[in-house]
Amino acid sequence: MTTDTFLSSKAALDPENFKLANCIRALSIDAVEAAASGHPGAPMGLADAATVLFRKHLKFDAKTPDWPDRDRFVLSNGYASMLLYSLLHLCGYEDMTIEEIRNFRQWGSITAGHPEHGHAKGVETTTGPLGQGIATAVGMALAERRLADEFGDELVDHNTYVIVGDGCLQEGIGQEAISLAGHLGLGKLIVLYDDNSITIDGPTSVSFSEDVPARFAACGWHVQTCDGHDGSAVDAALTAAKAATDKPSMIALKTVIGFGSPNKSGTAGVHGAALGKDEADATKKALGWTVPAFAIPDDLAGSWKKIGTRGQDSREAWEGRLAGAPEDKRREFERRVSGTLPAGYEAAVSSARDSLFSEPRSAATRKASQMALEALAPALPEMIGGSADLTGSNLTRVPAVNSQFSREASGRYIGYGVREFAMAAAMNGLALHGGFLPYGGTFLVFSDYARNAIRLSALMGLRSIYVMTHDSIGLGEDGPTHQPVEHLLSLRAIPNLTVFRPADTIETLEAWDCAIRSMNAPSLLALSRQAVPQLRLERTEENLTARGAYVIRQFGEGRDITLIATGTEVALAVEAAEGLAADGLAVAVVSMPSWELFDAQPDAYRADVLGTAPRIAIEAAGKLGWARYVGSEDNVIGLSGFGASAPAERLYEEFGITKEGIARKAKSLAG
Amino acid sequence: MTTDTFLSSKAALDPENFKLANCIRALSIDAVEAAASGHPGAPMGLADAATVLFRKHLKFDAKTPDWPDRDRFVLSNGYASMLLYSLLHLCGYEDMTIEEIRNFRQWGSITAGHPEHGHAKGVETTTGPLGQGIATAVGMALAERRLADEFGDELVDHNTYVIVGDGCLQEGIGQEAISLAGHLGLGKLIVLYDDNSITIDGPTSVSFSEDVPARFAACGWHVQTCDGHDGSAVDAALTAAKAATDKPSMIALKTVIGFGSPNKSGTAGVHGAALGKDEADATKKALGWTVPAFAIPDDLAGSWKKIGTRGQDSREAWEGRLAGAPEDKRREFERRVSGTLPAGYEAAVSSARDSLFSEPRSAATRKASQMALEALAPALPEMIGGSADLTGSNLTRVPAVNSQFSREASGRYIGYGVREFAMAAAMNGLALHGGFLPYGGTFLVFSDYARNAIRLSALMGLRSIYVMTHDSIGLGEDGPTHQPVEHLLSLRAIPNLTVFRPADTIETLEAWDCAIRSMNAPSLLALSRQAVPQLRLERTEENLTARGAYVIRQFGEGRDITLIATGTEVALAVEAAEGLAADGLAVAVVSMPSWELFDAQPDAYRADVLGTAPRIAIEAAGKLGWARYVGSEDNVIGLSGFGASAPAERLYEEFGITKEGIARKAKSLAG
Repeated sequence: MTTDTFLSSKAALDPENFKLANCIRALSIDAVEAAASGHPGAPMGLADAATVLFRKHLKFDAKTPDWPDRDRFVLSNGYASMLLYSLLHLCGYEDMTIEEIRNFRQWGSITAGHPEHGHAKGVETTTGPLGQGIATAVGMALAERRLADEFGDELVDHNTYVIVGDGCLQEGIGQEAISLAGHLGLGKLIVLYDDNSITIDGPTSVSFSEDVPARFAACGWHVQTCDGHDGSAVDAALTAAKAATDKPSMIALKTVIGFGSPNKSGTAGVHGAALGKDEADATKKALGWTVPAFAIPDDLAGSWKKIGTRGQDSREAWEGRLAGAPEDKRREFERRVSGTLPAGYEAAVSSARDSLFSEPRSAATRKASQMALEALAPALPEMIGGSADLTGSNLTRVPAVNSQFSREASGRYIGYGVREFAMAAAMNGLALHGGFLPYGGTFLVFSDYARNAIRLSALMGLRSIYVMTHDSIGLGEDGPTHQPVEHLLSLRAIPNLTVFRPADTIETLEAWDCAIRSMNAPSLLALSRQAVPQLRLERTEENLTARGAYVIRQFGEGRDITLIATGTEVALAVEAAEGLAADGLAVAVVSMPSWELFDAQPDAYRADVLGTAPRIAIEAAGKLGWARYVGSEDNVIGLSGFGASAPAERLYEEFGITKEGIARKAKSLAG
Repeated sequence: MTTDTFLSSKAALDPENFKLANCIRALSIDAVEAAASGHPGAPMGLADAATVLFRKHLKFDAKTPDWPDRDRFVLSNGYASMLLYSLLHLCGYEDMTIEEIRNFRQWGSITAGHPEHGHAKGVETTTGPLGQGIATAVGMALAERRLADEFGDELVDHNTYVIVGDGCLQEGIGQEAISLAGHLGLGKLIVLYDDNSITIDGPTSVSFSEDVPARFAACGWHVQTCDGHDGSAVDAALTAAKAATDKPSMIALKTVIGFGSPNKSGTAGVHGAALGKDEADATKKALGWTVPAFAIPDDLAGSWKKIGTRGQDSREAWEGRLAGAPEDKRREFERRVSGTLPAGYEAAVSSARDSLFSEPRSAATRKASQMALEALAPALPEMIGGSADLTGSNLTRVPAVNSQFSREASGRYIGYGVREFAMAAAMNGLALHGGFLPYGGTFLVFSDYARNAIRLSALMGLRSIYVMTHDSIGLGEDGPTHQPVEHLLSLRAIPNLTVFRPADTIETLEAWDCAIRSMNAPSLLALSRQAVPQLRLERTEENLTARGAYVIRQFGEGRDITLIATGTEVALAVEAAEGLAADGLAVAVVSMPSWELFDAQPDAYRADVLGTAPRIAIEAAGKLGWARYVGSEDNVIGLSGFGASAPAERLYEEFGITKEGIARKAKSLAG
């Protein structure tokens, strides 16, 4: 079949849809040409199906992009960003002007190479790192279901649509998401799979030959296949997908990448590079597109604008229902979606502090975390917890967050399974959706598995809370595969992520409090398996952990030496300091639960805490990074390599993380 | 059914096998009791199937654990380590004494909590981080197939067996491995799935309800299901699995976790905790086990020892075939499996150096990497490359490493698909198997996806080479999701991993040379998208990159300032230094391609390179970590947050990574 015959056969299937889709194709071609970089192929191939989705199914109102009950649309194959930007522009999202489209991939534009949440309205999540979009969408669907159960279908009733490419399904996180969504029967999750048989390296036959629909079916999904260029067929499939409410739905769209390009369609050549002027011209000609670059014919522009206002009535009706809801319910709904803290929260924190200061307790900081959750969660119905199959170790389950999220009933506790990456991405989705404050647990070492989703939490500035227990060689016998060594530093290195390593019950509570109040940055709590004494015994009103570091003990007048420690090593530093004080040295012990928060303190405070005496850092982890506080890694009591399998006490001894070791080093520096 | 009835019904299926399996169960119970930590449930449930495997199928000889043509056995659910240790002990592996079993999980023992490669013979790979065992086994199966094609079936013809638990299949990397193995038709890969319906958090119904056999089948696997406690059924299934040579095989073993325990079997309570004395006693009684702890009845011990020597004849026959092979072939085979470099390698390096010094070239370091590969790969038939679907970007494909590994024919280039994690784990398997030097590419930012497998390369001390391109904001328009910021530091933080960020064509060649010679540590090359000039113009014999850092330019006499830079920023530092020199300052520019190698230099060398003048570090990445070389992050020209989407030149300007910025900072410090 010639290109022309092929294109006209497709155009004939649903001519109106085809013409509307050409607007997307043309804008995508033009923007990628202008930037001389980008991925035109997927937007061109997906234009028909996306047009159907926006034209007939997606519930949205371009003038009110943040309407809480809008359907969510996630472009998991983020490289196809021009598909999304084109749709937003055509539908009349006010910020997505033609200038922004012209400035695709340029400094200061809202049209980044990959969709960045917070840049343009209508970008529901940042995508690009493959597979994470679908997992984030699973989190959005979880949020929708739970929020609907809490506030009723009249306020919460929307679908979550996702477009995925082959890459998203090759990535392991894709399967984690598919498996979890199928298990929980997330019926309002609808995935459109761009089955174009091409990845960057060439035909999928190079690396991918599985029966994708059968894989989804094995995971409990409702599965359909259809011609992705047949508007009517896609419409029917979407209708059937919405009707299948007991299972998530997947529609495999047979598409041609770079659809319309006479010489490059159906090849990897159109995946990640501009068509080039000649081929761009030839493509437009083949598509019957005659207007200049970046122009849209008036009739089509008008049709698209109407699509953009399709949801106006629904939105207004919804606003009416919200306005008509009982005052308490309306206010609580508004509070939940705005993410502000409830009135009772301060009191819950205060009372928890009182209780710890009144009855000091020795406890593992993971246990202290559970105590903090027990105290705070009842005041925060937005908290939704879970663990990647380590509930009993992470201690993430508490009475207020106990109802299991299952196929049958939404709950506040999600069994994510052994799927750390999907957990973190789903938490991002819960946070993005609104109405929830997600937290989830695993072992600190397995932050590795979830790492890029944690990075996206930080990049998007989401309030996700990672509960990472077993935070050092102190976990003991499980050995080096389970003992984090480089993890604290590698997480501290992620911009906009606050890492906490609290020293006792009080600091753990304070860390939770900081994390809960951190509206624009995720937090990660590194917590111990082993017990530590409560070091903070003197009642303070101030959350000292919020300072990042502070002098927790002072021995003698002035300072001969400063010991800086984190987490479980603070108690060890205090013990060492007691010995040094007995030998006549003036010692300050600094607890430093968070580098990031300390770095944000005023210079004078920082100088005061750090002092001018020689400093030693003590942390049962790699020494790298500590030079910023103690000048050299020679002044760090820590690890130089991986851990080992043995009881924790033995490991601390063998690796020289002991009060004797600290004292020796202190005397050599102070002397 | 009572426990007794149930157990006797199972015992009756294959009584001999049952009794042999009880030896594993008893040792596992005793060792976990003695350690008071560990996972008894899986070894108890898997004992019957593992007994069949070792007794009738696995090709091995306990007295020659490193026999190159042995079958490989990977325990992907590494927490079940006592299954493996018991088998090794019972079969007579010399190092696995009963004392080692008694010292399970203790300091200095070879019986770590999770199996650690290099501790005990017979531990083919380190496992524990779930899902990686099966992906590593895929690499072993790839190695077997390629090596067999190179040296013939008479020298290479073995299976790779893997045991996986539910966790391995919940982890995304499990699916990546399954999909890749199915795609490539790895017929000698046989997976035993411990389908016990329990994970740590409870019944798999909490989080896992998919049809696992159907998922494998969708990915092109040969699939069977059988009673995991029926020795004859397992035997028949293994025979059928071996006969299916065109597809990898999976056998879903229906098992009872903690098999034999009257009160805890079939529950999560037996997953990760000792049975406790009473239940241990009750279990032994139920199993008819009457000897003291750690004892094995003589008859059973004898039978097991015979199992351990089952493969002796095969091994001797194989040795005969090797001895009888043509001299050249035998020597090359021995060289390959020993991992030593071939005679022609030095000459290839020399000639590549000559060529670069003779005709200096400006090139992106990713391009320089391709040039290095073009020069060195022909001398190294053991090199086996690939990319996670970014071949054209990573430039990992060269003429000598071009033949595509496919279902039809083994090749030297593997299309891993968009599966970074499985790629890294498979590379570990290729390295562990012997005979290969694996390298694989992706974008540096996606090292996140593969991170824990890179960590395992380092923990095991494998010669894997990670080719990570697009190493900074210099990648430009793809934006912050694709721009590594924290990655260099977070990778430098992994013990025993050598990170290289070469500055030009020469350093890139030198980095490859270092990586190829690094027999006991993996290497990671961070390479640029954008072009840089060749800075090294003066011919040297010495590989200066092997020093980690060195003075690449000296302007004037003495030093007023030292500029330390890596990668693409070295050229920028040189430009800045030229300006500073024109203004009368004495400037040394230090190129620091590898922190790790520089740290390993003698103190005097380090002191000489660093000098005593004020120092500035320049790296287009996060500033954290550099204080160790320049005192404070104030002296770093780098990034304080995430990148942005725009052309690279614009980003360098906007983020102040410019020669003007360097000069300003230098003057303020030197002045």
